[in-house]
Amino acid sequence: MCQVAIFDSTLRDGAQAEGISFSVNDKLEIVRALDAIGVHYIEAGNPASNPKELAFFRQAAGLRLERAALCAFGSTRRKNSAAADDENCAALLAAGTKAVAAFGKSSLLHVREILRTTAEENLAMIEDTCRFFVEKGREMIFDAEHFFDGWKLDKAYALESLRAAARGGAKTLALCDTNGGAFPWEVAAITKLVCAEFPELVVGVHAHDDGGMSTASSCAAVRAGARQVQGTFLGFGERVGNANLSVIIPNLQLKLGYACLEPAQLRQLTATALHIASIANVTVRKGTPFIGASAFAHKAGMHADGVMKNAASFEHIDPAAVGNRRRFLMSEVTGKAAVLPRVQRIFPGIDPKGGELRRVVDALKAKEFEGYSYEGADASFDLLIRRSLGGLPSFFELIGYKVLDQLPYGGEKSATATLKIRVGGAVQITAAEGDGPVNALDIALREALTAFYPVLGSVQLLDYKVRIMESSVGTGTQVRVLITSGDGSAQWTTVGVSHDIIEASWEALVDSIGYKLLEDGGAAV
Amino acid sequence: MCQVAIFDSTLRDGAQAEGISFSVNDKLEIVRALDAIGVHYIEAGNPASNPKELAFFRQAAGLRLERAALCAFGSTRRKNSAAADDENCAALLAAGTKAVAAFGKSSLLHVREILRTTAEENLAMIEDTCRFFVEKGREMIFDAEHFFDGWKLDKAYALESLRAAARGGAKTLALCDTNGGAFPWEVAAITKLVCAEFPELVVGVHAHDDGGMSTASSCAAVRAGARQVQGTFLGFGERVGNANLSVIIPNLQLKLGYACLEPAQLRQLTATALHIASIANVTVRKGTPFIGASAFAHKAGMHADGVMKNAASFEHIDPAAVGNRRRFLMSEVTGKAAVLPRVQRIFPGIDPKGGELRRVVDALKAKEFEGYSYEGADASFDLLIRRSLGGLPSFFELIGYKVLDQLPYGGEKSATATLKIRVGGAVQITAAEGDGPVNALDIALREALTAFYPVLGSVQLLDYKVRIMESSVGTGTQVRVLITSGDGSAQWTTVGVSHDIIEASWEALVDSIGYKLLEDGGAAV
Repeated sequence: MCQVAIFDSTLRDGAQAEGISFSVNDKLEIVRALDAIGVHYIEAGNPASNPKELAFFRQAAGLRLERAALCAFGSTRRKNSAAADDENCAALLAAGTKAVAAFGKSSLLHVREILRTTAEENLAMIEDTCRFFVEKGREMIFDAEHFFDGWKLDKAYALESLRAAARGGAKTLALCDTNGGAFPWEVAAITKLVCAEFPELVVGVHAHDDGGMSTASSCAAVRAGARQVQGTFLGFGERVGNANLSVIIPNLQLKLGYACLEPAQLRQLTATALHIASIANVTVRKGTPFIGASAFAHKAGMHADGVMKNAASFEHIDPAAVGNRRRFLMSEVTGKAAVLPRVQRIFPGIDPKGGELRRVVDALKAKEFEGYSYEGADASFDLLIRRSLGGLPSFFELIGYKVLDQLPYGGEKSATATLKIRVGGAVQITAAEGDGPVNALDIALREALTAFYPVLGSVQLLDYKVRIMESSVGTGTQVRVLITSGDGSAQWTTVGVSHDIIEASWEALVDSIGYKLLEDGGAAV
Repeated sequence: MCQVAIFDSTLRDGAQAEGISFSVNDKLEIVRALDAIGVHYIEAGNPASNPKELAFFRQAAGLRLERAALCAFGSTRRKNSAAADDENCAALLAAGTKAVAAFGKSSLLHVREILRTTAEENLAMIEDTCRFFVEKGREMIFDAEHFFDGWKLDKAYALESLRAAARGGAKTLALCDTNGGAFPWEVAAITKLVCAEFPELVVGVHAHDDGGMSTASSCAAVRAGARQVQGTFLGFGERVGNANLSVIIPNLQLKLGYACLEPAQLRQLTATALHIASIANVTVRKGTPFIGASAFAHKAGMHADGVMKNAASFEHIDPAAVGNRRRFLMSEVTGKAAVLPRVQRIFPGIDPKGGELRRVVDALKAKEFEGYSYEGADASFDLLIRRSLGGLPSFFELIGYKVLDQLPYGGEKSATATLKIRVGGAVQITAAEGDGPVNALDIALREALTAFYPVLGSVQLLDYKVRIMESSVGTGTQVRVLITSGDGSAQWTTVGVSHDIIEASWEALVDSIGYKLLEDGGAAV
């Protein structure tokens, strides 16, 4: 099978999407996730753009990556100067990455109107910049900006820009549809001619989705000979976004016979997409091909019937190949079918046709009606099953809490919580200060419980997310809080819902602790 | 220019999307919107599926439509019977529409496994059904289900199914990619051969987006000779959805030279999409090509600079042609060029090369480093400009607030806020209960200020959003709050950032009120 390299720009082009901004920690976590699924190149930022980027590259250098090469991104050197004297080139070098991607102009229109230099100087800028990085030992990727538009305007000059990069030692020539306006048939025809001109180099494709064509254009380019696909894992990027790798990879690998990832990694596609989305604090649109929650969801009765007779009738691939799953909507029978394996994990002997399963489904529907969602909150769902079927011990009982938050601060921190709980026969009162009301309440609760359950000393809060559910009623809306906790070896996520964000957080905290104590068979000391 | 008919199935295939359900009134309103923009066919439901559908068709018959033909949808007659005795066919006829779309099998696999009949009987079902409706005066559209898959399995039989429809009098043969798995190059090649076989009929294309190819496949089919495109206006439908007409129409009309709508109607594309979305109670994804809010939004400074020098550099079409608009987003990657027009709106005489503009950009970068983001928070950005350049009056001063949140509730609600502010020489103290701490503080602040600024009585909170920024440090993380406010005629959005969610909300509330008072030239009474 012919190998195609996957080049992810979530941290560079993706960061240019409206509403996206990454902390250094977010970026490191995304690098780890992309490496784990087997992406070949991770374009992680423009170190010349701001100090935060360079700080990130310094930390990223310490990561042990399995497969991915980190790549720094920047422009070719300034006009009428030398790459060795160029601040941007120096910053790219200082990033210390294995690969460097530099973009330059392939369109004469842009050379004249945007860059405002001569055709010759632009070619020299491209060649010099590539040579500079190659001589410093970098693997060089040349991003030919506006390549397809440039080709339509002046094919000979567009090719000259690639020849300049090749002379400079670039290993990869990435053809960019920068304004996203090209059609797949154009991309295919032009890519084929470029591949014939540069048989010894890797040709790549970098598409944007302005016309809704980027998935088709990227696949068409590969069929025409491209061997590197640039995009972002979830498709977000400047304007409407970049080519969506989570959609392109399964098309290439499952349907067109190219090799991108290991099959076992491909089965992590959906999970990896959800993980990256949660770091980026975006949701994966349900209707995203392959990885979306609705990608294999069947609503019409006729379709459900068809799928059960022959899955291929309404499913173009096996959902398991990308780690997704088939769902039947609005059907009580299938409701039970989906819940059964989760219940069996806790109660292996449960009767699939008995009333217990019905009880769990009813409890689930009632909670979802109140606004709970157990997608991703597996620990709370396990507790829901136990609450419905019995067998959930009471580890402690809340007598009451009070949280005071003030400005100017009363003490060193903005919030103080006092908490009173009962464990067995004993009553415990604690107070704590925190950065905000939830943090204070969290600290007070841990302090109160750790005396009885020392095992909780190892539990840490890893992530805290807030979603507003009805977004048209101002500050009185319902909020859903998701808390992810860990104890060094396991992680689990719990959910809470209330009009009051503190109460919703409290529910999620209580579930988090209840889950840990259950898993550890935790009796009070 | 070559005319392509637009066939919208929002009310039929679209209604099969997860989370979509239409009332009869919703459907009537969508029919009006689709007719107004000039869609040629509106497939409005399957009258045989439930009584609500037939009730709708009875009411729809009374609509005066400018251009669109209503179309009822159903299957071919049952096997081994006559169309005249078929309940489904009777219901389709009773719908009283100008056109009827009937779907039948073009794939031998489906004839055998799903329909469980003979190859011959399936052809008879298609021919009989078409003849039945044509004899009753209906314009007949045959939807050839699984056509492309059927063709790959047995090209001759797939063509036979179309010939049966043609013999029965069908005017249009719609080739369906029912499981959404076909590639545009396959669709183009097969459509071209079908068009050559049926030069006297209209060939249509009906694509689903399971591979992310439906936009490209629909356009490729038109280039190959298809003259009807079926889809849904916003792309929603079973599983990941149908071909998105709001994306396909501008591709065909603005970029490929086909005629679909009148140019003036095309300029209503974005407004119509938003209108239909609001009836369907879905949001138009920002990243939707052509019509999304981000479709022409520029974030990177270099892009903003490029667009101002030459719009085509980062815009594949003129946004006005589809009724959308260009936006420059404020962010740390934004340069002076993007900030300038925003500053000029407030200070028209500002020197584009002067130090003041630099001061605004520096203030922006400093705030973004603290975690603020002004994308979408235009009102806070205006206040930032005024704070940097002077001219922001102090409407009030906070002396202090205290918010108490408790469980069990202390009063009727979970939270109580007390607030002390100074306005001019006067000190005002208020207290309020609320659903959660932010709601209580919001009510207390309004109560305190409305005495001095009665104009605030008209201000309402419309939306409240919370983002957690460092998503790996537990409940002590920084939070960003976005508040959207309105006064009946305008809406504005403000941002606040803090470790403490209440303090972050406070900041956004204060900006919201400051912006309103500024806009109203508000002096204290």
